[in-house]
Amino acid sequence: MSDTMQQRAINQARGLAIDQVEKANSGHPGLPLGSSPMLFELMAKHMKFNPANPYWADRDRFVLSAGHASAMLYSMGYLFGYGYTIEDLKGFRQFGTHTPGHPDYDLARGVEMTTGPLGQGVATAVGMALGERRLAALFNTDEHEIFDHYTYALVGDGCLMEGVSAEASSFAGHLGLGRLIVLYDSNNITIEGNTEIAFTENVGQRYQAYGWDYHFVENGNDVEAVAAAIEAAKKVTDKPSLIEVKTNIGYMSPVQDSEKAHGSPLGAEGVRVTKERLGLDPDKHFHVDDDVLAYCRSAKDSCKATEQAWLEVVEAYIASSGDKGRQLQDYLEGKSVDLAALPGFADFDKAMATRETSGVCLNRWSVADPLLIGGSADLASSTKTEVKDSGWIARGDFAAKNIHYGVREHGMGAIANGLALMGLHSYCATFMVFTDYMRYSIRMAALMKLPTLFVMTHDSIGVGEDGETHQPIEHYASLRIIPHLWFWRPADGRETAAAYSTWHREGPTVLSLSRQKLALLENSSVEDARKGGYVLAEANVSDNKPAIILLASGSETEIAFGAYKTLADEGVSVRVVSMPCMEAFEAQSAEYKESVLPKAVKKRLSIEAGSTISWRFYVGEEGYCLGLDHFGASGPASVLYQEYGLTAANAARIAKELLAQ
Amino acid sequence: MSDTMQQRAINQARGLAIDQVEKANSGHPGLPLGSSPMLFELMAKHMKFNPANPYWADRDRFVLSAGHASAMLYSMGYLFGYGYTIEDLKGFRQFGTHTPGHPDYDLARGVEMTTGPLGQGVATAVGMALGERRLAALFNTDEHEIFDHYTYALVGDGCLMEGVSAEASSFAGHLGLGRLIVLYDSNNITIEGNTEIAFTENVGQRYQAYGWDYHFVENGNDVEAVAAAIEAAKKVTDKPSLIEVKTNIGYMSPVQDSEKAHGSPLGAEGVRVTKERLGLDPDKHFHVDDDVLAYCRSAKDSCKATEQAWLEVVEAYIASSGDKGRQLQDYLEGKSVDLAALPGFADFDKAMATRETSGVCLNRWSVADPLLIGGSADLASSTKTEVKDSGWIARGDFAAKNIHYGVREHGMGAIANGLALMGLHSYCATFMVFTDYMRYSIRMAALMKLPTLFVMTHDSIGVGEDGETHQPIEHYASLRIIPHLWFWRPADGRETAAAYSTWHREGPTVLSLSRQKLALLENSSVEDARKGGYVLAEANVSDNKPAIILLASGSETEIAFGAYKTLADEGVSVRVVSMPCMEAFEAQSAEYKESVLPKAVKKRLSIEAGSTISWRFYVGEEGYCLGLDHFGASGPASVLYQEYGLTAANAARIAKELLAQ
Repeated sequence: MSDTMQQRAINQARGLAIDQVEKANSGHPGLPLGSSPMLFELMAKHMKFNPANPYWADRDRFVLSAGHASAMLYSMGYLFGYGYTIEDLKGFRQFGTHTPGHPDYDLARGVEMTTGPLGQGVATAVGMALGERRLAALFNTDEHEIFDHYTYALVGDGCLMEGVSAEASSFAGHLGLGRLIVLYDSNNITIEGNTEIAFTENVGQRYQAYGWDYHFVENGNDVEAVAAAIEAAKKVTDKPSLIEVKTNIGYMSPVQDSEKAHGSPLGAEGVRVTKERLGLDPDKHFHVDDDVLAYCRSAKDSCKATEQAWLEVVEAYIASSGDKGRQLQDYLEGKSVDLAALPGFADFDKAMATRETSGVCLNRWSVADPLLIGGSADLASSTKTEVKDSGWIARGDFAAKNIHYGVREHGMGAIANGLALMGLHSYCATFMVFTDYMRYSIRMAALMKLPTLFVMTHDSIGVGEDGETHQPIEHYASLRIIPHLWFWRPADGRETAAAYSTWHREGPTVLSLSRQKLALLENSSVEDARKGGYVLAEANVSDNKPAIILLASGSETEIAFGAYKTLADEGVSVRVVSMPCMEAFEAQSAEYKESVLPKAVKKRLSIEAGSTISWRFYVGEEGYCLGLDHFGASGPASVLYQEYGLTAANAARIAKELLAQ
Repeated sequence: MSDTMQQRAINQARGLAIDQVEKANSGHPGLPLGSSPMLFELMAKHMKFNPANPYWADRDRFVLSAGHASAMLYSMGYLFGYGYTIEDLKGFRQFGTHTPGHPDYDLARGVEMTTGPLGQGVATAVGMALGERRLAALFNTDEHEIFDHYTYALVGDGCLMEGVSAEASSFAGHLGLGRLIVLYDSNNITIEGNTEIAFTENVGQRYQAYGWDYHFVENGNDVEAVAAAIEAAKKVTDKPSLIEVKTNIGYMSPVQDSEKAHGSPLGAEGVRVTKERLGLDPDKHFHVDDDVLAYCRSAKDSCKATEQAWLEVVEAYIASSGDKGRQLQDYLEGKSVDLAALPGFADFDKAMATRETSGVCLNRWSVADPLLIGGSADLASSTKTEVKDSGWIARGDFAAKNIHYGVREHGMGAIANGLALMGLHSYCATFMVFTDYMRYSIRMAALMKLPTLFVMTHDSIGVGEDGETHQPIEHYASLRIIPHLWFWRPADGRETAAAYSTWHREGPTVLSLSRQKLALLENSSVEDARKGGYVLAEANVSDNKPAIILLASGSETEIAFGAYKTLADEGVSVRVVSMPCMEAFEAQSAEYKESVLPKAVKKRLSIEAGSTISWRFYVGEEGYCLGLDHFGASGPASVLYQEYGLTAANAARIAKELLAQ
C-alpha cells in the first residue's frame, strides 16, 4: 500500500513538474522525470526535516546542485508541505513569483541555496557538511547532541564536469566528510548529446581517488535500491559518499533518453503521452490526488516530534552549559559580534601592510567569536589569515577554526559560502588577482546576500617581482560592480578595522589588501572610514570649497597624502578624500556626500593603481584619473610605481596642471 | 663521461637558478633545485627543438605550468642556447628585462606561453597537444609527415589541485591525446606545509580514471628512471601520460623538504651551503664551466639536421600538394582570412538573434578557412557555434573542426588558448554569464595578446526565464576593462559581421550575443561598425549638433532606435550612436570620435541592459545612463525589459526630461 502510494506520489510529482514547464513554455522536464524517484525516496524516508519549520538548525540539508531541475524541487516542496501553493507552481518562471527558473535561496520554502550555475551547489554542500561537523565539535557534548545531521546534494553530469566540484570534492575526501551524501543523476545525456561525446572518464574511480565512498544503483526507478545505497552511505562515517544512480532523462516521455528532453517543454501532446504512460490522467493539470497529498504531508510527522525533542535538548543545554549555552543561543539567534565595539579593535600605531593589519583584526575578532572559521588557498603565511587562538581543522578533527583549503580558489569560495549558509562566520583568502578563479562563487554570495568575507591580499602592482600574472589591474572595478557586494580597499590599520566592522551585512565583503607596508595615516579614523569616503586632510580651504580634491583608496592614499602636503605647503587650497569603500559611501546621505565631495568643486584627481573606470563618476569631466589601464610588469614595487607615474610628485604635478586649466 | 657531464650541467643549472633568486632577492629556489634533473634530461635527450629557431612549427612544446620556477626555465634557456645572456639572468625579476618573475610568453626565447596562475599551463598544453593532432590530420599524408611532435608540461601539486587542470585533463583523457606528456614534480610540499594537510587524494588513480597513462618515478635525481618513464610514455600513443616524479623541494639547501624552500631566497649562506653540497664553487656566481656550456650548446645539434630535413619535406609538400600546399604555406606564414573581404560575409536581410547571425558568420568563415577550430561548453545548439562543413573531433579522429568541450568552461578557455598558440583559429563558446567561470583563461589570452575568440551568447536579461543566475549584468563592463581585449556587442547581422572581421588582432575578442531576435537595423553597416561606434541615424540635426545623442549597444540598439523615432517624429534634434565596441571606437582618430560624439553635445542617454559604469565616460555629467545596476530575475524577457524600464517609451521619456533640464 505505502509503496503503491509512493509510486503514485512520485508519478504525480513528475506530472506537476512537466505541467510547470508546459505552462511556462520554458524549462527543463528531463531531469525531474528521471530523478523524481530518488528525490522522493530521499525526502520521504531518509531526510530529517520539518516543513512547518524550515529554519530548524539541525535539519538535514538538501541542495539541488542540478538547479535546472527546479520544477522538481517545487513539486516536492508542494507535496511535502513547504509553503508552496498550486498557484506558485502555475507561476513557474514568471516575474515576481516564488518559483523562478533556477532555484533562488528561499529558506522559508526549503530552498537551501541558489543553484543553476553548475557545480556550485555540490561545492557549497561541501561547506555545509563541514559546517555541520564544525558546529558539532563546537557544541556537542557526551550528554547533548545538538548537531547531528546529513547534507545531501543531487548532481548531474554537468556538475561533475566542472572544476569547482572537482576542487571541493577533493577537499571533502581529504577531510573525510562522512555526512555528505551526493546523489548523481547519471543519465548519459548532456545538452550536446550522449556523454560519450565528451565525458568518458570513470567518475566512480575518480571519486574513490579523492577518498570517497562510492555506490552504484543500476536503475533509478528502483527506490529500494536507492534506499539501500543511501542507508549504506549513511553508515560510512569517515568518507563522503557518491551514489551514482542510472536514470532515464525524460523518463516515459516521447523524448526519453535524448538530449531533447533536457531543456525544452514536451509540448501538449508530449505531456499527454507522458502522463498516460505514467498512469496519470492526461486531462488533469497541476493535479495531486487527495490521498497522495495527505500521504506526503504526513510523511514528515515523525520529524516534528524529533524537532520537539531537539528543542528540549537545546533548552537544557542553554540552561546548563554556561558560556557554551550562551554561545549556542547567540548562534541560534543569528547574533554576530559588533567588531567596532570590541575594545582596542582598531588600535594601530605604526606603518604596516594592510594584509598585516587585516591579520591583526582577524585575530582580535577571533578571540571574541567562536563561530569564526576560514582559511586560504594555500597562502596563509602570505595572506596573514591564520587565527592564532586555534589550531587547524583536519580529517576527523573539527575542533578548530583554521582551514587548509589547498590551491582550490573556486571550490574555496563555494565552500566558504556553504559555511556562511550554516550561520558560521566564514572568510576565505587568496591573492586579489585570483578572484578571477573564483568569480562565480563570489557572485553566488552576492546573489544570496551572504556575508561571506573574501580577504584578498597582494592587491596591486605593489606585488612587485611576481609580475603581470599576479598583479590585479581590472579587479577592483570588476568587483565593485557586482550588486550587493562591498569592496573595501583600506589605507591603513584603522581603515582595515572599519572594513572588518561592516562585514556582517546582507551581502559579501571583499577586502583588498596590500602586500607592501603602508603608513598609518595621521587623520584616519574608524568612524569616518565606516562611511566609505571621508575628508582625510585639507589645507587652505574655506566655505567647504577646496580648489582641488584628491581622491584615493588603499595603498595610493599615502601617495595622495604626499601630493597634498606638497600642494598645501605651496598654499594650494586642497583636500584629500580617502575612499576605501564606494558602496559604503553611496549608502550615506546626500548631505554627507555633498560635504565630502561638493558638487561645485570640479577639479578632482583620483589615484588608484588599477583600472580608472571606477573613478570617472567621482572625478567628472574636469578631473583626471591617475591609474593603470594596462597590465603591470615584473620588477620591484617601488620601480613599478615610479615607472607608471604613481608617485606623490607626479600627482602633485597633475594637480597643478588641472588647477592651471 | 657524458653522464658526469650531464650531472655537472644539472647542478650548474641549479646554481644559475639560485643565483638569480638571490640577486633579485625575490623568487622561488625550491622547485628548480628539485626539478632541474628531470627538465634537463627532458630537454637534452628527449625533446625535439632547435634553439637557433624557436619558431620551428614542428618543434616539441614545453610548458612550465609551475611558472614560479621561472629561474629554472631561464637557466635551461641559457644552457641550451636560446637567446639568454648572463646579463639577462642577472636581470631576473627586474623591470624591463627578459626574465620576469613568472614566464611571459616570449617565443623568441623559447617561452611557449605565460604561466604562473596555477593550472593554466597544463590546461593550455592540452590545447597545444590537440592542435598538433589537428594539424597532423589536416596536413599529414602517407608520404609527408609535417606534424609529428610531443607536448610536455611540468606541473606541481598546486597545478593539479586547480579545477582548470582537472577539466582539461578529463578532456585530454577523453580524446586520448597520446602526445601529451605531463611531468609532475611531486615534492609533498605546498606553501602552507606538507601536502598531507590539504591534498591527500590519489593523483595517479584520478588520472587513470580520466583515461591517462600513469608512471611513477621514485627519485627525481635518477635521470635514468626519468628517461625510462618518458620513453615509456612516448610509446603510449592513445592516452596522455602523467609521470609522477618524487623530488625534494630545495634539494641540497638548508631548507630542503620544507615549505620554506618554496618562495624565498636562500640567503647568501644558504646559497653557499647548497653550492658546496652540489659540488659547485660557492664563490662563483652565475657561472657555467666552458665545457659544460659547450656540451649543452651542442646537445641539440642533431635537431638542427632534423629541422633541415623537415624544411625539405615541407618544401616538397608545398610544391606538390596543390590547395593543401598553399594552405600549409599560409599556415606557416601566419596568414589569416580577411573576413570582411569574403563575398557575402555580411549579407543579412531579416531580424535574427545575434547568436544566429554569429552562427551564420562562423559558418561563412569556416568554408574559407581550414584552420578554424572550436566548440562550446556543451551548448552548441544554444550558442549556434557548430560549423556545418565539418564533423566533430573525437577520440583518435582529428579530421574535423568542431569540438565537444563538455561542461568545462575554464578548461575550455585554456585549451582554446593552446589552440591559438598553435596558430589555429580558435574560438570557444558558452553563455555570457559563465565568463565568470573562465575569467582567468580570458585574461591569459589578453596577457599573451592571443587572438582567441570567445563567443558568448544569452548576453542579458533577454535570457528571460532562466533567471538571475543566468543573466549577465556586470559582465560587459568587467570584460571591457581587461587590457588588450575587445568586447563586441553587435546589434544585428551586419554588426556581427563587423565584429567577426576584427577577430585577428593582437588580443582576444569577446562577442556578446543575444538569445532573442533583434531587428536588422535600417542603417547599420559593416564599414561603420568596424569603427566601434558610429552614427546610426539622426533627425533634425544641423551643423553636427544634435540636441541629444542616444547611445546603445547590442539588443538595446533597437530600443534606442525606437526612442529616436518617437523623438524625431516630435521634431527633436536627435542622433543615435550605435556603439558595438568601445575599444574599436577608442582606436579611431580624435576627429572621427568628435564627429560621432561632438563634445558640445552634453545631453546624452545611454541604453544598455547591464552595469552603467561603462557608459559614464561617454555620457558625462549632464547625461543619463539607462541600464541595470542590480541583478535580474526569472520571467519572460519582454516582461523583464518592461519592469526594468528598458523600453523605447521610457528612453524617449528620459530623453525629453534631459532636454527639459
